[in-house]
Amino acid sequence: MSTNSTQPLFVGIDGGGSKCRSIIVDESNRILGTGVSGPANPMNDYETAISSIVESVELALDDAKLDRSLMPDLIAGAGLAGVNFSSGRDKMLAWSHPFAEFHLTTDLHTACIGAHKGSDGAVMIVGTGSIGISVKGEDHFILGGHGFLQGDMGSGAWFGLQAVRLALSSADQLSPPTKMLDILLDRFSISHHLGIMEVMANKPARNFAQLARVVFQAAEEGDEVALQVIEEGAGYLSRLALRLLDQSPKRFSMVGGLAPIVLPFMDKRVQQTVETTLEEPEVGAVYFAREHYAAK
Amino acid sequence: MSTNSTQPLFVGIDGGGSKCRSIIVDESNRILGTGVSGPANPMNDYETAISSIVESVELALDDAKLDRSLMPDLIAGAGLAGVNFSSGRDKMLAWSHPFAEFHLTTDLHTACIGAHKGSDGAVMIVGTGSIGISVKGEDHFILGGHGFLQGDMGSGAWFGLQAVRLALSSADQLSPPTKMLDILLDRFSISHHLGIMEVMANKPARNFAQLARVVFQAAEEGDEVALQVIEEGAGYLSRLALRLLDQSPKRFSMVGGLAPIVLPFMDKRVQQTVETTLEEPEVGAVYFAREHYAAK
Repeated sequence: MSTNSTQPLFVGIDGGGSKCRSIIVDESNRILGTGVSGPANPMNDYETAISSIVESVELALDDAKLDRSLMPDLIAGAGLAGVNFSSGRDKMLAWSHPFAEFHLTTDLHTACIGAHKGSDGAVMIVGTGSIGISVKGEDHFILGGHGFLQGDMGSGAWFGLQAVRLALSSADQLSPPTKMLDILLDRFSISHHLGIMEVMANKPARNFAQLARVVFQAAEEGDEVALQVIEEGAGYLSRLALRLLDQSPKRFSMVGGLAPIVLPFMDKRVQQTVETTLEEPEVGAVYFAREHYAAK
Repeated sequence: MSTNSTQPLFVGIDGGGSKCRSIIVDESNRILGTGVSGPANPMNDYETAISSIVESVELALDDAKLDRSLMPDLIAGAGLAGVNFSSGRDKMLAWSHPFAEFHLTTDLHTACIGAHKGSDGAVMIVGTGSIGISVKGEDHFILGGHGFLQGDMGSGAWFGLQAVRLALSSADQLSPPTKMLDILLDRFSISHHLGIMEVMANKPARNFAQLARVVFQAAEEGDEVALQVIEEGAGYLSRLALRLLDQSPKRFSMVGGLAPIVLPFMDKRVQQTVETTLEEPEVGAVYFAREHYAAK
């Protein structure tokens, strides 16, 4: 399609531990195209992050039937995982980006902007990782999100890891028996529990996140060990959500693939308060770009 | 020094997740030299493992005042972490090793051979990782050792990870306050808890193992959260040890840097049964090489 070259084009980028989504919109907020690529957390892997960002924008340009040579004309807004830490942020700010402008914030912030269509509020992300934010103007109150190894309880990766961990220790009769062992053996088409360990050894968070549903499947079949894991994970997420609600945000939403799955196990006050997200995080990134472009 | 070229020289190699030790002995078991290098777990990183093995043997030759050109004359026995899994073992067996002979088994097996001076028995390793074995002839009964992420409860890396995890969640007031937070902030000379996360993000197991003593230090100061972590870790290790003792091994020993630290918190029966190790794991690797050399 052809575009009016006097009007700016915006691209919103949402980059997380598993994938990177881009959306291209015109001045009047019409969606022209979208693109999805791989992981874009610069703290985990800077090279992968920047190539995922470029690839997702290229795919969005393709999808919009726009030439890739338009990249230098785009006003980009990006919400990325890992840039809440100086080491992640510094790397991204030093990037010789290929856009006209590149406005950077956290994936958490753009998710929040998107969820509440530009107005203040709070969100909790429960996807590969888990983290929460309450935004009031310039004030960002952030909880959790300490990473796969060290935190992110109740996240997809955390649930998947518990499934693997408890299946392995139950096979050694060092923890109570659990159906999660049989489900994992079935899933990997293997007969010995050490095969699970070999498959999952040194795998990143997103591979564990793919196993989160193993816990919920076993729990549905009445597995006590799985039910206890859900209680522990959902309990942590409830405490996190309630601390966000203590900030009296205008609105509160939950985003991420595991959010609807874990919500029924969470504190009743959280269930009663949560509101639907109004827009996607990548649209939030467009709002962010627009705000900073307009601010010039 | 000069050696009698008609008599074989043996090298025993003990390779784990943090370091690789080699010892060179002559036919009459006199220790000629020792060498220590970096990590040697081929399942984590094959290239690092083989270069650590070669380096530690070179250093042992240097220490013995033997020329490095004698490497091709050595009868090597190696006990390595990770070779209990086919992917680790296959890589090592395919290695074009620089020795006259290379006899491979697990680090667990050579630790057991060493601890009981060549006779059958059981050992539990509590170092960077945790794992147990009971050996009766060809029969190896192994428990635990599922890796930093997925298992190895009660190990140094596990204790260090709990310290970081609980310090971070307590800073967010999502778990009870703990002195481990202050100890870690002090240790890293930082003022904000997210600095702990940045320092430890994506670090391997051995870096977490260096923080294990943080838990025991806090517990000594009466920290309830730390005491609970010790109870959980030592409880798991006790269950593992008692399952090994169910096999009625001739002797039972514990090895690894954390073993003496965690033992006082373990089940009384374990404390009453544990016997001192008679030789180091690398000496066990020499026994193993000697047995398979003699078997020819």
